[in-house]
Amino acid sequence: MIKTIAYEAPYVVILDQNQLPQRVVYESCATAEQVAGAIRELKVRGAPLIGVAAAFGLALAMQQYQGSVADLHSYYQGKRDLLAATRPTAVNLFWALQRMDEVLQSSQGCAPGAVGERLLQAAQDLLEDDIRVNEAMGEKGQELLGGSVRVMTICNAGALATCGYGTALGVIRSAARRNKIEQVWACETRPVLQGARLTVWELMHDGIPVTLISDNMAASVMRRGEVDAVLVGADRIAANGDTANKIGTYGLAVLAAYHRIPFYVVAPSSTIDLSLASGEEIPIEERHGDEIRQFRGVYFTVPEAPVFNPAFDVTPHELITAIVTEKGIIQPPFADSMAAAFKTG
Amino acid sequence: MIKTIAYEAPYVVILDQNQLPQRVVYESCATAEQVAGAIRELKVRGAPLIGVAAAFGLALAMQQYQGSVADLHSYYQGKRDLLAATRPTAVNLFWALQRMDEVLQSSQGCAPGAVGERLLQAAQDLLEDDIRVNEAMGEKGQELLGGSVRVMTICNAGALATCGYGTALGVIRSAARRNKIEQVWACETRPVLQGARLTVWELMHDGIPVTLISDNMAASVMRRGEVDAVLVGADRIAANGDTANKIGTYGLAVLAAYHRIPFYVVAPSSTIDLSLASGEEIPIEERHGDEIRQFRGVYFTVPEAPVFNPAFDVTPHELITAIVTEKGIIQPPFADSMAAAFKTG
Repeated sequence: MIKTIAYEAPYVVILDQNQLPQRVVYESCATAEQVAGAIRELKVRGAPLIGVAAAFGLALAMQQYQGSVADLHSYYQGKRDLLAATRPTAVNLFWALQRMDEVLQSSQGCAPGAVGERLLQAAQDLLEDDIRVNEAMGEKGQELLGGSVRVMTICNAGALATCGYGTALGVIRSAARRNKIEQVWACETRPVLQGARLTVWELMHDGIPVTLISDNMAASVMRRGEVDAVLVGADRIAANGDTANKIGTYGLAVLAAYHRIPFYVVAPSSTIDLSLASGEEIPIEERHGDEIRQFRGVYFTVPEAPVFNPAFDVTPHELITAIVTEKGIIQPPFADSMAAAFKTG
Repeated sequence: MIKTIAYEAPYVVILDQNQLPQRVVYESCATAEQVAGAIRELKVRGAPLIGVAAAFGLALAMQQYQGSVADLHSYYQGKRDLLAATRPTAVNLFWALQRMDEVLQSSQGCAPGAVGERLLQAAQDLLEDDIRVNEAMGEKGQELLGGSVRVMTICNAGALATCGYGTALGVIRSAARRNKIEQVWACETRPVLQGARLTVWELMHDGIPVTLISDNMAASVMRRGEVDAVLVGADRIAANGDTANKIGTYGLAVLAAYHRIPFYVVAPSSTIDLSLASGEEIPIEERHGDEIRQFRGVYFTVPEAPVFNPAFDVTPHELITAIVTEKGIIQPPFADSMAAAFKTG
């Protein structure tokens, strides 16, 4: 399995996903600023991976800290703010930074060097936990799929969106190991084409049968009776089950409901934000219009065309059949079942 | 208004729409074979325009006929077969060739040169009729729209899909003249991007407010309450109202129904095929996978990625609010109202 992120002292090394699938290029980030830039520019993307990358960025900054014990907290806060400001929608980013905050708080009295070491270890733990969590979701989630199924997915909720294995694609991987996958329909996922660039590449690499379609073909494929389930990842899940994910997910959920196809969200518990009552409170990132107007410098439209480019949408809970997490499969009504599964204290 | 097609002896001159909006290039077709190639390669596209282009191609061939009276019909049939085989879904192609057949049949006893002249005049008449028909649809269709509406469209059902003015965009033009259009949401329309390349260019040229979105954003824009009506063209309408149109249209219709947004098909009567009982009988063209894999040589995915590339889908009549034709607005139940409006003899 391809590595998406690693700490190789003194660098955080990331796979530059913008260059996939044409080129497999790793970038060595020497500073938290470089890690933040990589997240902003989508070199590193996918909710779980963004969280781990931010944690490594923060650990890197603290490793490099040369100042006094007295100034350590404000230095930390500055780097933390920088990383937290990279992308607003995926809650895993904030979740991972909070895990780092807890480690910082538990390191009162440590020398700065020791604090840096502890934060680095914490980031490494997040990375390893993420793979374990994905594998657990894959095992649990595959139970939802019968034999020889045709599934549809959007964006890349795969190994490339995580530290390995994947969320929605992790379920598909676990099902494929049991010979349950007849076909994966990969929606190309405009504008950034994570489906075409990443999911197709990842599944072809694993020998899992995949067919690429443009996003506007999903309805037609469903009507032909060739989709048994839709599986998607998530960037943030509110307390009632409303789910923010890549733009286009909501439309797929409406289409799945119309065609009576089960619609599953696959996400680790770090994606669940019980502090938000509903999806209406989830901030939706709007990105630069050039993502729609062109790709690698080739324009699709008039260069001055007005565009609207929301990167995510919210799927209301009533369109979701179940949510697969590492703690089990959450069934509706989600408000109750999520509170029972995830409320702490 | 930009010209899409013209006869400039001895050429059929067509606008090469594949190069839009970056370049406005006209191509002079000297033979029916060149016209057929232009249709196959989408240089000339849009159901009404394809019909007129095929008619001109046939007229061109007959103008060039140097053989005997005895061989004229088999020559005609050969050129007709060539043009009829270019694209299977839009019925306007076959409709226009049938108009030419009628002219040929009424030319019994004419010298080959006179037959060529009559066919050329017939093609010219089809061109002029098409513009008149579009203007009539625009006037009738705009009555469906209240003041200050936000409409959504897919593909290009505009001046560029016709000999001028457009079908769905003709209605939008007529409404815009009455200051009724607050916003047009143009779906980019993968894979060939007719929305991004053609509709945006055409509407910006006319000063009609347009915003480009990727196809998978349509649901989200609808949910935000920013769409008052969906207007689309058509490639073939069966007797029960089922409508074949650009891939993605069916999905938009499902989304419109879910969000309780009226969904209007705008098409001339030449698009209506009463010989087919339902949309299940409409042949759906599947095009080369490279349309999805790349654009102008820039690859979006693994070059060997398996793809599925249907160029059209069928929207079942129950998702269609009304069909706008030059003969009036057809209301459901379409089987009855279309038979009443269009059945001949």
